[in-house]
Amino acid sequence: MSTESVAVASPRSWQEIRDAKKAEQAARIPVEWRLTEFPSAGTIDVRPIASTCGILSGRELKITGDSYDATSLAAAIASGIYSAEEVAVAFCKRAAVGHQLCNNLTEIMFLDAIEDAKKLDQYFKETGKTVGPLHGLPMTFKECFHVKGYDYCNGYISKTFNPSTSTTYVIELVKAAGAVVIAKTNVPQTMLVAEADNNVFGQTRNPVVHHLTSGGSSGGEGSNMGFRGSAIGVGTDVGGSVRIPAAANGIYGYRPTCGLLPFYGYAASGYTGVNTGIPATLGPLAQSVRDLTLFTRVIRNAQPWSVDPAVVPNIFEQGTIARKPVVGVIYSSGLTPHPPVRRALREAVAKLKAAGFEVKEFVPPTLTSIREVTAELFTLDGLSYQKDTLAASGEPPVQSVLDIGFWNMPRKSQEEAWALNTRRLGFCKQMLDRWQEAEIDVVLCPVGPHTPVLPGQWNNDTYTVAWNAVDYPSVIIPFTTADPALDPKDTDFVALSESDAINEAKYDPELLAGAPAGLQIVAPKWGDEQLLADVEVIDLALNGKPAGEAASSSGAPKL
Amino acid sequence: MSTESVAVASPRSWQEIRDAKKAEQAARIPVEWRLTEFPSAGTIDVRPIASTCGILSGRELKITGDSYDATSLAAAIASGIYSAEEVAVAFCKRAAVGHQLCNNLTEIMFLDAIEDAKKLDQYFKETGKTVGPLHGLPMTFKECFHVKGYDYCNGYISKTFNPSTSTTYVIELVKAAGAVVIAKTNVPQTMLVAEADNNVFGQTRNPVVHHLTSGGSSGGEGSNMGFRGSAIGVGTDVGGSVRIPAAANGIYGYRPTCGLLPFYGYAASGYTGVNTGIPATLGPLAQSVRDLTLFTRVIRNAQPWSVDPAVVPNIFEQGTIARKPVVGVIYSSGLTPHPPVRRALREAVAKLKAAGFEVKEFVPPTLTSIREVTAELFTLDGLSYQKDTLAASGEPPVQSVLDIGFWNMPRKSQEEAWALNTRRLGFCKQMLDRWQEAEIDVVLCPVGPHTPVLPGQWNNDTYTVAWNAVDYPSVIIPFTTADPALDPKDTDFVALSESDAINEAKYDPELLAGAPAGLQIVAPKWGDEQLLADVEVIDLALNGKPAGEAASSSGAPKL
Repeated sequence: MSTESVAVASPRSWQEIRDAKKAEQAARIPVEWRLTEFPSAGTIDVRPIASTCGILSGRELKITGDSYDATSLAAAIASGIYSAEEVAVAFCKRAAVGHQLCNNLTEIMFLDAIEDAKKLDQYFKETGKTVGPLHGLPMTFKECFHVKGYDYCNGYISKTFNPSTSTTYVIELVKAAGAVVIAKTNVPQTMLVAEADNNVFGQTRNPVVHHLTSGGSSGGEGSNMGFRGSAIGVGTDVGGSVRIPAAANGIYGYRPTCGLLPFYGYAASGYTGVNTGIPATLGPLAQSVRDLTLFTRVIRNAQPWSVDPAVVPNIFEQGTIARKPVVGVIYSSGLTPHPPVRRALREAVAKLKAAGFEVKEFVPPTLTSIREVTAELFTLDGLSYQKDTLAASGEPPVQSVLDIGFWNMPRKSQEEAWALNTRRLGFCKQMLDRWQEAEIDVVLCPVGPHTPVLPGQWNNDTYTVAWNAVDYPSVIIPFTTADPALDPKDTDFVALSESDAINEAKYDPELLAGAPAGLQIVAPKWGDEQLLADVEVIDLALNGKPAGEAASSSGAPKL
Repeated sequence: MSTESVAVASPRSWQEIRDAKKAEQAARIPVEWRLTEFPSAGTIDVRPIASTCGILSGRELKITGDSYDATSLAAAIASGIYSAEEVAVAFCKRAAVGHQLCNNLTEIMFLDAIEDAKKLDQYFKETGKTVGPLHGLPMTFKECFHVKGYDYCNGYISKTFNPSTSTTYVIELVKAAGAVVIAKTNVPQTMLVAEADNNVFGQTRNPVVHHLTSGGSSGGEGSNMGFRGSAIGVGTDVGGSVRIPAAANGIYGYRPTCGLLPFYGYAASGYTGVNTGIPATLGPLAQSVRDLTLFTRVIRNAQPWSVDPAVVPNIFEQGTIARKPVVGVIYSSGLTPHPPVRRALREAVAKLKAAGFEVKEFVPPTLTSIREVTAELFTLDGLSYQKDTLAASGEPPVQSVLDIGFWNMPRKSQEEAWALNTRRLGFCKQMLDRWQEAEIDVVLCPVGPHTPVLPGQWNNDTYTVAWNAVDYPSVIIPFTTADPALDPKDTDFVALSESDAINEAKYDPELLAGAPAGLQIVAPKWGDEQLLADVEVIDLALNGKPAGEAASSSGAPKL
């Protein structure tokens, strides 16, 4: 017997792999779009740099600016005001600038996108028609969607340099409707944190208040959309992952009822919802409520139930009624929101009442209790998938993962999993009963116990995950921003619990000044179509008509 | 320290508990309804004994006989032809006779039912109106539904003599619509077998061919409805438990898409479907397709989504189109059906073609492969619930449980459960794709690999559980019966597998003579409303208009 060892090619360290991946990414930004000057330390709002950096022309700034939302921009392209190519270039430039400031992209696809846009222009030139209602709209997708030929590493070193061999169905649908996919966006390691930080791509930042988190897990998407780096972004949400970054970056976001939009063929990042009882869903981030509706209608009109077995037919195609919905307000439920969040709710209620809405307080089953069960359900396997996928490269967990609060929860037996889901179903029943008794149409509630906080500190998803647990659709709208003058620290704070004390300690009026304080509006399960209609009415009462909507309220593409 | 033992009341043996339960049951049959003479050994079809036993009057035989289905009977009651009381008495008598012959009831509620019927008559007399579309219709429910004040033992000794403290929501709904609940019906020990045999109540028999099984797990329901012991029966189905007994006893049955009908507040008998990925649903057994629709519409019209969080709104309320559906036929899929089942399919196809239907062969993902995954999913916990519930009284498993084929399957880790559900979701996708490619509206296929066989031998649910795994709704219609002259044993049988050889060995043309050979008709998930309409058209082509339907096609209650 020989005892000689066989020579094995030395595997690269995880740091070497990271460096190679970052180098690949950097090379995909054209040289002429690279920032030569960076904002001075302490710059808060980096969004104006889109205008000041000199990379975008005035016309490109108009295309990507608040003159348009996706709906009015699509109308402008369809009427020949802009070519798809110039729109793609404009958004690719803006996304490139935003990424260099906030580190929010993963796979950069600018060159492919511009080629796709040229083909759209060719089609438009030859036929005089658009290929579909999203013709020429640049879009971004969270890292966990497949785009053939690009990686889908989900923030894991061990999954880099292994490109997708197919494209996720929903991306095929938006491309068939004319959208141009320009990039994928950053996520947290493990995909389980309201954050976007991992050893591959690093920490994403918030463009509105640069030293704060962009939220997550669709944090790259939120940051990029906050910088207006694409017309519509698509994230996923199993605990708040669309809604938290939408609110954190001052934009609109929508988590539909699971089974409304097709999730078929995405790059799974752990347990399927069938086992946990809490499935994930994709959802759009946008600059207006009607953009959320545009995306949803385009996907639903493609009859995705004929391709994705999980999609329910004819449930978003029933028509809506014009109304001022009766609003039930959750001011607090087991975890005291920071002063800016409480003020946002108070001001919203006052405005709604002034506009003639019926508003009442709504007391749900305690949301912190629901959250306890979801944390157990998300860790049925003791997070073996996540730990194994980290171990495959030797990379360590990042700090925000260690701080998640359930990183070391033990695995569960089948009997324990059953008991947990029985508890979750009990909350579903309680929520339904209270909703019925309250005679409300929608709920208005916080998105989180705070506005965006320092990176790594958004580790309590109580106000979002509760709606995943009961599978109620919800929409985020921007509303106000934290203001030290209006939102002083509580002088008489009494902590409801240890978590509540931890949350209160995160509030520093000066540190969080300017942070977006969005609102969450929730409807009962399957009430999606009417919810989007109701939120348009509420948004108009609270925010007036956004600039982008004003641009072409008559020119929206017909669906 | 004292070492003296404390006197403890000696617990009763499981046999003593069984005897007490059977004595309680027997006492609930009025003396004058007790059979004094039993059929001679070897009697095949016991249904005529309803007429010959002398317990039912001619008018009661007409009420309970094939002059009416539930729809036309409800119309007759509503027009004052019959009182609710006389209808209740007639069905209670018939159910009592059927039970004495086939042992198909568990909790007998005749006296309560007749009191309920008297109140309905009083209301009708005072107002001239019915209380709802089920006014006066006697109904039976499978043991696993709660009726306040009655046991819900699900065939376990350890769960006897512990009455329900509330009534299951769906029973409240049918009572509110005027139905009269006369009894609950027998189930198999563990609820997991296509059988109805347990140590509490014993073995249920088939009224059509008395030495054969009634199927299961809603086997008591099937047997009672086969004897016309109630107007509509309600079972549950997670692997074929409504459909198998419907087919075995020559009646109609319907397993809806999960989430169509409210299951809230039933007496769980093990793992919830959330964990296994294959939820159970309730479903009706009846004498006509329109009766299945009647029950479903009454429940849906009560807007059960406002009470049961699992119910999807507005998905059965979209209207149907009148059409001859395109029929895809599965003749065999991994397990060779017995000759009578194959002949039933051949004859049905010939009749459908003659009636102008487009019929083509449909090849699904192999159903036996799907079944392998479901057996693993049903045993995630190693059947700990079932084994613990048996152990609580010391009763042994009955033979049909030991023969189920997965009684000793090991428990699964969360990772294994995840992998199994991933395989199941793969089958969902394959089924959808093949259905789309085939361009069919419905599938026609066997209900099982055989007609009813000897008790304890229906231990392969391939042809039904596959549709639970993908959650496609399906309807059973009766069609023909096994005939030794038409269905000789195959002389050239070649077994596809060991299971196939075992199945073939169960075929004895003389033994199974007269056994009902029903047909299963399946639609895609959420296609329930159109499915029921399509099956009415198919049933008319195959069976003509049933006698009960002819009675009052114009007098059906308005819904």
